[in-house]
Amino acid sequence: MRYPTPIQRLLEELERLPGIGPKSAQRIAYWLLTVDTADADRLASAISEVKRAIHFCPRCFNFAEGEVCAVCADPERDAAQICVVEEPRDLAAIERTHEYHGLYHVLHGAISPIDGIGPDQLRVRELIERLGDGSVTEVVVATNPNVEGETTALYLARLIKPLGVRVTRIASGLPVGGDLEFADEVTLGRALEARREI
Amino acid sequence: MRYPTPIQRLLEELERLPGIGPKSAQRIAYWLLTVDTADADRLASAISEVKRAIHFCPRCFNFAEGEVCAVCADPERDAAQICVVEEPRDLAAIERTHEYHGLYHVLHGAISPIDGIGPDQLRVRELIERLGDGSVTEVVVATNPNVEGETTALYLARLIKPLGVRVTRIASGLPVGGDLEFADEVTLGRALEARREI
Repeated sequence: MRYPTPIQRLLEELERLPGIGPKSAQRIAYWLLTVDTADADRLASAISEVKRAIHFCPRCFNFAEGEVCAVCADPERDAAQICVVEEPRDLAAIERTHEYHGLYHVLHGAISPIDGIGPDQLRVRELIERLGDGSVTEVVVATNPNVEGETTALYLARLIKPLGVRVTRIASGLPVGGDLEFADEVTLGRALEARREI
Repeated sequence: MRYPTPIQRLLEELERLPGIGPKSAQRIAYWLLTVDTADADRLASAISEVKRAIHFCPRCFNFAEGEVCAVCADPERDAAQICVVEEPRDLAAIERTHEYHGLYHVLHGAISPIDGIGPDQLRVRELIERLGDGSVTEVVVATNPNVEGETTALYLARLIKPLGVRVTRIASGLPVGGDLEFADEVTLGRALEARREI
């Protein structure tokens, strides 16, 4: 037996979401069918609304509600620093540290030849354009510390250094509160390599 | 930094879904922000549509598009058998076997004193009412083979047997294709207990 068409259609749409398989889709559909119509409608309208209200910032490609995003619109931010991240959620993670006060640039991915993603599929050209007027003195590359992220960081460093802009990379090392015993060799190796005088 | 309000609102609504935590909600929201508006709108309308088009069958409490559900509306089904399940997804699972041709009754849960769920929170009264006219000769209890499901099965058996209706329980045992070595003791015990002549 197939479910009635409207349920089938909902299941198909839910299964297209990232991380949602047939079992999760069934659970969500069942939940939606048992809650108040008002609850389901709030979800439906939040989905439609977000597409109408949100676009990407034309400067840094972060999520934006106004003409530019909240960070680019803030005159208090240090326009001499640009932190390069892969995704808007990485930007949000850095903002939560309250340690960085410059601007951002969201690449929307990382270089990954195996997935057919090169610099042209990312917002690299736009980043280089932002460095054109000489006001930026440092680019902090905060791509993920994995193969794709490191490749992207090296690529950007080679591209940007000749422009006379300082390129830095966020540190790799042991997570705070972590346990030396359980650290993998690569992380521990990086932590040793980047040791500092205390 | 908080996300812009429409994103924040979407994240809150997504996190209310079963099995969706903050990380999954962020991934889904990001996916929705990057796909075509038409794709996002299809999901939003599938959610609204399902609430308008689907209700619970007044006889068996399965999902229904018409007055009664597709199973109850089918004159080919054997009205002398009622299979009792916890949720509509269990009904769907049994239908996929093509082994059962009777009717169903969906309890919408199982007895669980720890969660405050007793027979009054389930569709038990409606099940007993369906047995009133003597046309049903067998009730197949297909609640889950866990504590709550077994409790519910025993409770229903005690309630229904005095009405002169046969009550049966689906078998527990080793899953087909499974490995004796990896079976837990309770399942293996049940499989031994329910052994049959070959």
